[in-house]
Amino acid sequence: MKPNFSLRLRVFNLNCWNIPYCSKDRVDRLKRLGDFLNVESFDLALLEEVWSEEDFETLRQKLLPTYPGAHYFRSGIIGSGLCVFSKHPIQELAQHVYTLNGYPYMVHHGDWFCGKAVGLLVLHLSGLVVNAYVTHLHAEYDRQRDIYLAHRVAQAWELAQFIHHTSKKADVILLCGDLNLHPKDLGCRLLKEWTGLQDAYLETQDFQGCEEGCTMVPQNCYVNPQGLQPFPFGIRIDYVLYKAVSRVYVSCKTLKTTTGNDPLGGTPLSDHEALMATLCVRHSPPQDSSSPARETAETSPLVTVLKEACTELGLGLAQAHWWLAFASCVVGGGLLFLVLLCALVAGGDSGQVASLLLGPSVGLVLGAGAVYLFHMQEAKGLWKAQAELQHVLGRAWDAQDMGSRPRPAQLLRQQLDDRAVEQ
Amino acid sequence: MKPNFSLRLRVFNLNCWNIPYCSKDRVDRLKRLGDFLNVESFDLALLEEVWSEEDFETLRQKLLPTYPGAHYFRSGIIGSGLCVFSKHPIQELAQHVYTLNGYPYMVHHGDWFCGKAVGLLVLHLSGLVVNAYVTHLHAEYDRQRDIYLAHRVAQAWELAQFIHHTSKKADVILLCGDLNLHPKDLGCRLLKEWTGLQDAYLETQDFQGCEEGCTMVPQNCYVNPQGLQPFPFGIRIDYVLYKAVSRVYVSCKTLKTTTGNDPLGGTPLSDHEALMATLCVRHSPPQDSSSPARETAETSPLVTVLKEACTELGLGLAQAHWWLAFASCVVGGGLLFLVLLCALVAGGDSGQVASLLLGPSVGLVLGAGAVYLFHMQEAKGLWKAQAELQHVLGRAWDAQDMGSRPRPAQLLRQQLDDRAVEQ
Repeated sequence: MKPNFSLRLRVFNLNCWNIPYCSKDRVDRLKRLGDFLNVESFDLALLEEVWSEEDFETLRQKLLPTYPGAHYFRSGIIGSGLCVFSKHPIQELAQHVYTLNGYPYMVHHGDWFCGKAVGLLVLHLSGLVVNAYVTHLHAEYDRQRDIYLAHRVAQAWELAQFIHHTSKKADVILLCGDLNLHPKDLGCRLLKEWTGLQDAYLETQDFQGCEEGCTMVPQNCYVNPQGLQPFPFGIRIDYVLYKAVSRVYVSCKTLKTTTGNDPLGGTPLSDHEALMATLCVRHSPPQDSSSPARETAETSPLVTVLKEACTELGLGLAQAHWWLAFASCVVGGGLLFLVLLCALVAGGDSGQVASLLLGPSVGLVLGAGAVYLFHMQEAKGLWKAQAELQHVLGRAWDAQDMGSRPRPAQLLRQQLDDRAVEQ
Repeated sequence: MKPNFSLRLRVFNLNCWNIPYCSKDRVDRLKRLGDFLNVESFDLALLEEVWSEEDFETLRQKLLPTYPGAHYFRSGIIGSGLCVFSKHPIQELAQHVYTLNGYPYMVHHGDWFCGKAVGLLVLHLSGLVVNAYVTHLHAEYDRQRDIYLAHRVAQAWELAQFIHHTSKKADVILLCGDLNLHPKDLGCRLLKEWTGLQDAYLETQDFQGCEEGCTMVPQNCYVNPQGLQPFPFGIRIDYVLYKAVSRVYVSCKTLKTTTGNDPLGGTPLSDHEALMATLCVRHSPPQDSSSPARETAETSPLVTVLKEACTELGLGLAQAHWWLAFASCVVGGGLLFLVLLCALVAGGDSGQVASLLLGPSVGLVLGAGAVYLFHMQEAKGLWKAQAELQHVLGRAWDAQDMGSRPRPAQLLRQQLDDRAVEQ
């Protein structure tokens, strides 16, 4: 370690694609992942898509001598799939489950059942407080007609808010995970602008790995090349992001990805590529730790992305309202039909057919009622995120006003709020 | 303001009992609440059970000149019922919705549909950062046979964690709300021990109000005295809690409660009593801001309450597992019955009766499936809270070991984890 560097942090991230009974070579890949992590002895290994707690336990037992700190983040019905292994004692733990995460009736996509979340572990290293976050956002199944876009933007915002509010006394912030966002996607820009996190791939002095830093590549034998057709090099959706909050300066010395193969030989460790970063943390004069919203000269990109996110959430909100109206109509129509059926059964005419239809009709009304309740919750979640974004926008405008004319900004915020209420 | 006090903070809290179509005199009480808040001009008014956003909008319009900052915390299907009015600009906002909040099939209790949450607003006052939290935990319907106890303990823990992780750079922490916890209840002790928050009623130099600081009293005409029979003075379940994190010293100069009447005359403002606190924030030498878990001399009460909470969550987990087993049996039995019915329909024997039973049987299987999924999510939530508590316990033991023997504590924590896995 060079004398002017106080800390070198070696970090590993992988979306493990460990779905019991579904993922190919799961047990073998898990075994080889454990071997690799033991050989490399990273400071931190942050994993996604470890869906089975038995798999986590297997890894934990195997990694115990090298990584005495370990935690599995439980949430939802299946789990978050997130887990961490740390060479250093984990001082504190927390997690936040995203309010919005797809639709329960999209069973074949399954995200809703997972309880996607962000996990936080706090480490104390060389007198520094390191907040490490691991997350996995909602998958993108159809980039052209992405019905989950508003949910993913809301998740990116909640992730940014969670980091923003829980990292105020941290010296170093680290976020690893599968964001299911391309680098220029709205969610990714929103996250970076609001937290000030830097992208290890863009910042590193030494990159080795897939072209353009891609983490899902056609040469990986577990990847369906059809899905990657518009992207000849693959896509970059897994990230190592970092930031120095105070007192320190962080740089990414090296960043490596696997390249569609197991680094120790054999089939790849997953359908995603692993990321391996070496971060150097150096003491420095106090940095400006104020949030971007307060830096008037720099508000412009933030304001742009906040507005864009507001619009996207508004579109999601309109969609949720359409579903609410549709479900209301079905419930209303179904109840009328039920009354008619009851009258037919009581009257005796076509009583047999009517009795046969009673069950499905009750089911239809109950089902539509459940759809109504779900989309009401969705609307509240989108609206909540939009209101928070509008509040930040309002504060940014206030800051641009340099405190001289707070009233108009205040009124503008109220107008935005009023518009949201009317929606 | 005395020269040695930098800030005087006047705070109002009320569970408003504003349930559209249900709560008596709702519109009149809301109007009088608005008048009272305008007359008193508090720094902050934190309200619970404002279930209708129209009511919030009515209040917001009325309070706009006195309280330009206002926010409604949206969540769940109905909403969180939480809102805030601030005389000072709200710098930042965040919220956390509790993972566990009762059962959807307990429709008559309704808590599950509300999305109970904790809301945070950050204020900058006289150069100090004030984090104000407002919350409302799950109601207690039967103190002797409280089926929601584990959920309320989990909520208290999530509340404590949210405050702990989001307040690290705050100078003053303030928590107001209806905790639905008596002062010596496990959840209340857990919250106070983990956050270090102080109870304004116990700390104030000048208290005026109901006997023993009660906030739900038999003399309030909206309260059913039957429910309060074991408590002649009433119960204390609404709180103003506070803490100085750094640089400052906070004391509660006065605390008042309403006493079953409107302070300006007429019927009471709610079925709960309002709390009005005057806090004095004074500059002081740096305080010890380390968390209680790290203060070895003081770990004992924390360790006791953490263990107690672990046990309570374990009981909740056992109950959730019972439901999982029950729902599995119903799904299995229902599927067998469905196969039998299909065979009867195909065979023609008793075909008519069998067809009539098909619908309800499918409904039963789907219903039991939904119950299974819900309790699986409940189990994950309880388990997650228990794992976090165990981690804090482990850290406390490590701290007691003074770093000399970390291994046994580590192993003990692992044993606890293993036990949890076996459960």
